[in-house]
Amino acid sequence: MSSPTPELRTDPVTGRQVFVAEGRASRPGAFADGRTRTSDGPENCPFCVGHEADTPAATLTLYSDDDPGKWQVRAVPNKYPAAAGEAETFGGGQTAQPAAGVHEVIIESPRHLTSASELTAAELEKVFWMYRQRLAALKENAQIRHGTVFKNVGAEAGASLEHIHSQLIGLPWVPQGIVQELSGGLDQYHRTGACVYCHMLQEEQREGLRMVAENRAFAAFCPFAARFPMETWILPKQHGSHFEILEAENCRQLAEMLHEVVGRIETALDRPAYNYLIHSAPFDSGALVHYHWHIEVLPRVTRLAGLELGTGCFINPISPESAARHLRERTSPFDNRHPGSDPDSGIP
Amino acid sequence: MSSPTPELRTDPVTGRQVFVAEGRASRPGAFADGRTRTSDGPENCPFCVGHEADTPAATLTLYSDDDPGKWQVRAVPNKYPAAAGEAETFGGGQTAQPAAGVHEVIIESPRHLTSASELTAAELEKVFWMYRQRLAALKENAQIRHGTVFKNVGAEAGASLEHIHSQLIGLPWVPQGIVQELSGGLDQYHRTGACVYCHMLQEEQREGLRMVAENRAFAAFCPFAARFPMETWILPKQHGSHFEILEAENCRQLAEMLHEVVGRIETALDRPAYNYLIHSAPFDSGALVHYHWHIEVLPRVTRLAGLELGTGCFINPISPESAARHLRERTSPFDNRHPGSDPDSGIP
Repeated sequence: MSSPTPELRTDPVTGRQVFVAEGRASRPGAFADGRTRTSDGPENCPFCVGHEADTPAATLTLYSDDDPGKWQVRAVPNKYPAAAGEAETFGGGQTAQPAAGVHEVIIESPRHLTSASELTAAELEKVFWMYRQRLAALKENAQIRHGTVFKNVGAEAGASLEHIHSQLIGLPWVPQGIVQELSGGLDQYHRTGACVYCHMLQEEQREGLRMVAENRAFAAFCPFAARFPMETWILPKQHGSHFEILEAENCRQLAEMLHEVVGRIETALDRPAYNYLIHSAPFDSGALVHYHWHIEVLPRVTRLAGLELGTGCFINPISPESAARHLRERTSPFDNRHPGSDPDSGIP
Repeated sequence: MSSPTPELRTDPVTGRQVFVAEGRASRPGAFADGRTRTSDGPENCPFCVGHEADTPAATLTLYSDDDPGKWQVRAVPNKYPAAAGEAETFGGGQTAQPAAGVHEVIIESPRHLTSASELTAAELEKVFWMYRQRLAALKENAQIRHGTVFKNVGAEAGASLEHIHSQLIGLPWVPQGIVQELSGGLDQYHRTGACVYCHMLQEEQREGLRMVAENRAFAAFCPFAARFPMETWILPKQHGSHFEILEAENCRQLAEMLHEVVGRIETALDRPAYNYLIHSAPFDSGALVHYHWHIEVLPRVTRLAGLELGTGCFINPISPESAARHLRERTSPFDNRHPGSDPDSGIP
């Protein structure tokens, strides 16, 4: 392997963005076949309490309310960053350029837990507060234009370490997927004079078919064009484009909603691998009427195949209406099947 | 599970297209955790010779040159289609509509093989001829505007059955990923007066860094912004926008090139799961100066995580330059590593 400096490359036809980060080839779990997988027990876990020296120094530490001498959530630089360092002027064409930015890991508990549902809502509140504080800090960095927080749970969802954690990536440019949402939202706003997400939420609440849960400040539903079985979006009920201005009182509401959604998904799909990602507007824009920050929770029980990768079209074998019904009723689609009823299906 | 009629749904913000196909929930291997996996041995394999009654009747059968009484490649309708039936007028907004189209399976051998590298180049030539003939037949169907051929090998690449096969999907609309390539190609053509793929190929041949192999009619290279380790594209050297007008003599050239590329990838990555997909222009356009049909081969040794799914940005831990070098030299990046040299890496 050559240089560990990550590079940013753009496909000249589609504009697709790729981080070429050779340093990541040597990280545990870099390859899907388990070739580089290390032991996942707490003994060798670099994220467990007592192993703080195994990670770079924290950029922010939040302490336990019960015992202020003990840490509860830590943010540390990623040892195998996809983006790192100062931004340079952007080149064009097939020229390699350094992938500037910030890539951190948020360690969500000193204990060796694996899923957000194993934290209490109070603990999860502190995790969301960490996201908010780190994003707010990155916003002060004039080099960084956008911040994304994402979580991978389970090997199928791309996690390389078991210990409960999420990641934050701050970039001097706005990722293509977010640009697409911003443009789509703006188009719809021009056409209708309303935020497309606000409209979507009203329609979902009115129709009810795809609703999963609600509290004072947040609503969760399975989106109409869900890509994955039980895919669920969490939207703030009040319009807002930027996650990092989340108020302290709503942080607890969000923690409770995410805790509930993940718990329901884990019941329905028997603790699947999953991702979640906070979709939020660029730091350098003011409040946007046409964009609505939200969290997408993506269970990973189906695999992306040639069709998805080649055409961008997804196949979802469970409709969002069935999915939402199971999530509301805390049932599983697998429970309805009886062994032997269809000998060809092989479904136990 | 409710209706088995597949539906097409479009995300109102991003335009992302999803087939909601509940019938596919009961297909073998529908879920990644193996819950629905059936035995993969030849005994129960519906694609093996002698089990022809387990599939719907063939839409086209190609016979063995040696023994014209025996089939060599069969195209059959997919029992669990993502798209099926006649097109209706397109609705807008959050309205479910039938996913019209054709979804077939191409069974590539009567024998229980698993990868394209196990076929001879002569056998593979017949497979490509089948693709060509089925796409040419779909082109005659006024309802169908675009045809995609794709292959999933191995569970990590989304394959639900082991027996060597590929799939063909014909749709009354052009998938978003192909539209993106067509638009990007047109933009570049307007700017430069040249096909962006022809230009790319010339540059790759000139520079040589990312070249993998060449024969009379085709060239293979790792693209500059490769998403996956050892991702390789195969382009016809002569400009052409539509795969289905491939000449018989070039069909053999293509078979030889694909055979070689897959073989080299299997050496480098120790027989990984992989996808390939034929990218070709819509049936209802004439010859396009700005689009160049090609095949993308995508090895699946890394997993798509929250970042990829949320932002559309990929992380590739092996640069296309290293990848191409290994593919040219028939070496593996894993061979260069010595156990114990980096005790933290966990790499054997």
